[in-house]
Amino acid sequence: MEHNLQHTISLLARTPEVLNSLLRELPEVWTRRNEGEGTWSAYEVVGHLIHGERTDWMPRAKIILQFGETKTFEPFDRRAQARTSQGKLLSHLLDEFARLRSENLDELRALNLSTDDLGRRGRHPALGVVTLSELLATWTAHDLTHLHQISRIMAHQYRDAVGPWSAYLGVMQCGGHSSP
Amino acid sequence: MEHNLQHTISLLARTPEVLNSLLRELPEVWTRRNEGEGTWSAYEVVGHLIHGERTDWMPRAKIILQFGETKTFEPFDRRAQARTSQGKLLSHLLDEFARLRSENLDELRALNLSTDDLGRRGRHPALGVVTLSELLATWTAHDLTHLHQISRIMAHQYRDAVGPWSAYLGVMQCGGHSSP
Repeated sequence: MEHNLQHTISLLARTPEVLNSLLRELPEVWTRRNEGEGTWSAYEVVGHLIHGERTDWMPRAKIILQFGETKTFEPFDRRAQARTSQGKLLSHLLDEFARLRSENLDELRALNLSTDDLGRRGRHPALGVVTLSELLATWTAHDLTHLHQISRIMAHQYRDAVGPWSAYLGVMQCGGHSSP
Repeated sequence: MEHNLQHTISLLARTPEVLNSLLRELPEVWTRRNEGEGTWSAYEVVGHLIHGERTDWMPRAKIILQFGETKTFEPFDRRAQARTSQGKLLSHLLDEFARLRSENLDELRALNLSTDDLGRRGRHPALGVVTLSELLATWTAHDLTHLHQISRIMAHQYRDAVGPWSAYLGVMQCGGHSSP
């Protein structure tokens, strides 16, 4: 399936409410536990998504539109949430994520991107040449990779509790495929 | 983490709204496509969850409480949704799932299960002896395994669209771990 901007926006617009429905006011045993040393909790994932809204997706889209391949993106800080989420309640982070996502999508819609725009090229610090279309598709898939991760982190907490059924539960066999 | 009935209910109660937020009125390119021959779409997963509400979780809980290990559970039909969802809109399935889940949780709460009750044993047709506690923990983890699956099915649709970023997206490396 090719990238389609309306399909991308239709998913991006839903993620804040999906995370609200799943996480807001849930007991902290589900939201604050991780999968072991060096891994993230659902709380940390929300902080990571916030940092992406601030520094990754729309800032990079604007670099592509303004500078093309001549200006390499700033590397993304995958550990920033340890600093930026400090002392904040999960409910506060969910509100912050919803507000930032909404502002970013308003800005994206206002760009009125044409098919030609979507084909414009930029430069990723590790991946090299990428297109605006690939960046926006990745924004969506990045939401899904973290929904995939959160469901796995939460299922992990019941790894022992499910007893012999763990053999039937795909999520219990998922190692994450990437760190964290 | 041990099984805790309140933690289990807190998650089970949220799944209908999580699926609503994620799937209702989403373009069908996200909800009706699968990961290839023999795999499910998000639409089919919702039908499978409905069939579980009707024939798996609470019916098995009641068998354990009434018959203990003397009555083996009916095997669960993992392909029933091909028949039971036929011709139904996704919005209809989401409503049906929400209604059944709500009724089942009302019934679960009304049982007022004690710690002793949770330790009661039943007989699974393939896994052998299991406890009521394990069954209820599995109900929750089963929701999570299908949320994990839905996020993977949807991400799969953008496998090509994300270009070189696919190397960074764990969900694109996930093979599912179990069929389907």
